[in-house]
Amino acid sequence: MSDTYSMGLDFGTNSVRCLIARTADGEEIGTAVAEYSHGEAGILLDPDDPNLARQDPRDYETGAIEAVRGALEAASETSDFSPDRVIGIGVDATGSTPLPLDEHGAPLAYQERFAKNLAAMAWLWKDHTSFAEAAAITKQASETHPQYIAKCGGVYSSEWFFSKIWRCLKSAPEVFEAAHGWAEISDWIPAFLTGNQAPARMKRNVCAAGHKAMYSADWGGLPSREFLASLDPKLGALRERLFDSAETVDKAAGNLTQEWAEKLGLPSGIPVAVGALDAHMGAIGSGISAGAMVKILGTSSCDMAVAPMDRELPDIPGLCGIVKGSILPDCYGLEAGQSAAGDIFNWWVNEIEPGGPEKGSHTELTILAGELAPGQTGLLALDWNNGNRCVLVDPRLTGLLIGQTLHTKPHEIYRALIESTAFGARAILERFAEYGIRPSEIINAGGIAEKNPLVMHIYADITGLPFRISRSGQTCALGAAICGAVVAGKAKGGHVTLAEAQRAMTGLKEIVFKPNPTNQAVYNRVYSLYRDLHDAFGTKTWTGNLYAVMKELLEIRDSVRAKG
Amino acid sequence: MSDTYSMGLDFGTNSVRCLIARTADGEEIGTAVAEYSHGEAGILLDPDDPNLARQDPRDYETGAIEAVRGALEAASETSDFSPDRVIGIGVDATGSTPLPLDEHGAPLAYQERFAKNLAAMAWLWKDHTSFAEAAAITKQASETHPQYIAKCGGVYSSEWFFSKIWRCLKSAPEVFEAAHGWAEISDWIPAFLTGNQAPARMKRNVCAAGHKAMYSADWGGLPSREFLASLDPKLGALRERLFDSAETVDKAAGNLTQEWAEKLGLPSGIPVAVGALDAHMGAIGSGISAGAMVKILGTSSCDMAVAPMDRELPDIPGLCGIVKGSILPDCYGLEAGQSAAGDIFNWWVNEIEPGGPEKGSHTELTILAGELAPGQTGLLALDWNNGNRCVLVDPRLTGLLIGQTLHTKPHEIYRALIESTAFGARAILERFAEYGIRPSEIINAGGIAEKNPLVMHIYADITGLPFRISRSGQTCALGAAICGAVVAGKAKGGHVTLAEAQRAMTGLKEIVFKPNPTNQAVYNRVYSLYRDLHDAFGTKTWTGNLYAVMKELLEIRDSVRAKG
Repeated sequence: MSDTYSMGLDFGTNSVRCLIARTADGEEIGTAVAEYSHGEAGILLDPDDPNLARQDPRDYETGAIEAVRGALEAASETSDFSPDRVIGIGVDATGSTPLPLDEHGAPLAYQERFAKNLAAMAWLWKDHTSFAEAAAITKQASETHPQYIAKCGGVYSSEWFFSKIWRCLKSAPEVFEAAHGWAEISDWIPAFLTGNQAPARMKRNVCAAGHKAMYSADWGGLPSREFLASLDPKLGALRERLFDSAETVDKAAGNLTQEWAEKLGLPSGIPVAVGALDAHMGAIGSGISAGAMVKILGTSSCDMAVAPMDRELPDIPGLCGIVKGSILPDCYGLEAGQSAAGDIFNWWVNEIEPGGPEKGSHTELTILAGELAPGQTGLLALDWNNGNRCVLVDPRLTGLLIGQTLHTKPHEIYRALIESTAFGARAILERFAEYGIRPSEIINAGGIAEKNPLVMHIYADITGLPFRISRSGQTCALGAAICGAVVAGKAKGGHVTLAEAQRAMTGLKEIVFKPNPTNQAVYNRVYSLYRDLHDAFGTKTWTGNLYAVMKELLEIRDSVRAKG
Repeated sequence: MSDTYSMGLDFGTNSVRCLIARTADGEEIGTAVAEYSHGEAGILLDPDDPNLARQDPRDYETGAIEAVRGALEAASETSDFSPDRVIGIGVDATGSTPLPLDEHGAPLAYQERFAKNLAAMAWLWKDHTSFAEAAAITKQASETHPQYIAKCGGVYSSEWFFSKIWRCLKSAPEVFEAAHGWAEISDWIPAFLTGNQAPARMKRNVCAAGHKAMYSADWGGLPSREFLASLDPKLGALRERLFDSAETVDKAAGNLTQEWAEKLGLPSGIPVAVGALDAHMGAIGSGISAGAMVKILGTSSCDMAVAPMDRELPDIPGLCGIVKGSILPDCYGLEAGQSAAGDIFNWWVNEIEPGGPEKGSHTELTILAGELAPGQTGLLALDWNNGNRCVLVDPRLTGLLIGQTLHTKPHEIYRALIESTAFGARAILERFAEYGIRPSEIINAGGIAEKNPLVMHIYADITGLPFRISRSGQTCALGAAICGAVVAGKAKGGHVTLAEAQRAMTGLKEIVFKPNPTNQAVYNRVYSLYRDLHDAFGTKTWTGNLYAVMKELLEIRDSVRAKG
């Protein structure tokens, strides 16, 4: 039988990537990236509200076309490849990134009256405008339906599905009223590719639903109409226009339509897998298993683990979620993560730009930062410039830097920022360990693991675990391609199970970043100070009253801006 | 009678300034600045020890010649001026900046064997290498001679005379052994100008002696030999080679020698006043009085106040000093201040250089920072990048910045750093007020008050007091010139008393920076958070254990550096 190929589409924060991989061994024969064209690097911002981050859904369509055509072009250099050898397609996307839709499943943003309305766009995962709604959902659920949030750390996030929809209801009622329904873009993209946008036909993925929308088969799907109505009657009324069941990624969302086949340059009818959140798909593409946690280190970080379903997992406070089947169909999928990692380094490089664009580049700062020993900067930072997703689950936390003198240099702060995210990662690992989940290694994926060995060394020294790197540099897209190979099926040249497809198509690089005991000892001392600051500014149980400081500063800022 | 003139020499951190002023009305007819030529902007640094800051005494001599000749040149454009119209000279300098001397009063640094020895140089005020010695002096004095430190806030500083000398004894015993004596440069400079360097003839100023060397007539001058010997027998032995009495600035240190007259281009024999610390001289040149505090805002800040001697002043914890006659001969002189102010803004501009040299200049950052409303940044900083001089008196404190997000811009941090120094200034004013010293206005001097109205607005809004600016842009040098006019005496065209000379020669600019009530209200909220952080990280009485964080980070840093 000739070689067959599968295609993965990975819709990220700033761009979409298409990857074509050989189903037999995961060999990547063609890839292309299309940058989103709207906003600032694909993100629509509001100069008056730093919490707002939206995306224009047109970018997903035009981006898909550009990326797929680019990947096909690249793959055409492989002699036995042709587009009709593509047997399956998988899709992943950021999330929770909900998009308001009309009754046909078309984005409201495509209507002329909403064409420039930020509320009619996709509400990007890192939009934090709905912190008040998130707090109210947490409060209400704690009182009447604690099970809804018990598996997502006991706190519902401002980044998530219902917080954002409720915020839309309050801040842009005309958009809410006009919306027939809402979909995660990880559902809407497979839906438009397969012509299944209509509410009755759109498949929903259990990954986004379970981690972001309080979905569980245990209580019959999404939260009840009564619960949502207790937040707002209009949210209650929306309930029946949403969905009742959700699927794992080894199921098909439909088949590529003739229209989209032509746009993409592919044959029609190719099966498209149910979508998933990018991080979870990246875990699949990295070869996640019970002993190997996967860390996707990009603008934010995701720590993904799986646990067999042979024992009941307790609720783990501060985790983003524990959802059956959200990564591998037959395991609990556990998700933790940091709401900013690379974004904090990017902040230093792109917003502060120390020394100017050349001296202050990632490359230059990394070279100098790499010459420093652990502890040598005298600096310590909290990694909260974009709030804290785990284990504090508090988007209203902010950054902190301590220890600077008149001699502190930009690369010292750069190193302290890298260390801060590694301390945050360690805090998550310690929470996992408290509940019996103790991986023996971390498989890394994402651009930073690939590009910056210094970051890997620091993470290994701070966490005390060996850090390895996924063989693929595009694990999310590879994970999606793996799902494409599974929904294509064995007969077409794909695979029967996800586990089989992972074994065939994933691998690790040879390099292992092992913890250095001397560095570990120093970092243990610094980490204990990190915990002091973490607990002082991030928890109410601290004996001082510093918990209020960051929040009060934000309140002052917001009240001043409101007056301005 | 023809116009007469007086000359002030102001030895700063990076340069020396000479000013020639008309004794009748303070009109400034000639000025010149000479940069020090050694080290980094005149400061000798040690790449392995960020606490170290020294100066080469040659710079004081060559700088004096260049500055005086430059000022004479500039003054020569005034038609009735000629060098023989200069009737007196005053001198001020940074301090405590002690310099080790041989038995003739010449710097050890002038001996070939010590020419490159940093310990043989002048130990610049901002050298913090002797924090351990300062702590030991504080401890010993608290136990056996509490009166020695009661008037300097109860804590002896690492910036001060005996801490540095003791540090020299420990870290460079060959220099200590070779030193016959030590002098503040504010004593040594008038001494070499008048040929009175020999220990028996060198006049010592009560300003530096009282504020930095525990000098008081109440206990017969410097601390006793027994006390110093209890620190180290060799310090005790040094005691008799130091001095027993000190003078106010209305006394003469001697007359200009023929040799120096020729070097400077002046007639010989001109009386030279006893020196003083730069800030105290600046207070004189700004027109300090019982109702008007003087703030000198430069790289660091000094808050100077005077109080009549008709009541006994209590000890004020955390003040740098209360010394009879240290500013005006007939008043208590009170000194407080911040160990870094402009230096923190300079750190941001020069070390971090956000956006590169052009975008990140003081000018550009100030323009953008000025468009922000109080509270709008959501940021809060502690002004401790160079430790805290008042009211915590702790050089081992470090900077802190809180509230940054992924959107935080360089000019927002710049504004937060300005605000942090104003909050620090308010903490000092509140301490003064607790002890009954409540000025009704602040007279500002120093480069920043001149150059940056935004800083003045922020300070007025944060402290709630009107901020005014001294008419002269070079108040330290003007203060020195005023002292020169006093030691010249009425008969020569000078003045009888300092108060009379101040009335004649000082003035204020018309502009008044009044507090804006709306801004005050916002800043009151932010200041209360500043106090929380200040007390949490700066005091042991706070209920949490954050007092240890900054110190532990420095300990880790130092232990790592020691190993490296």
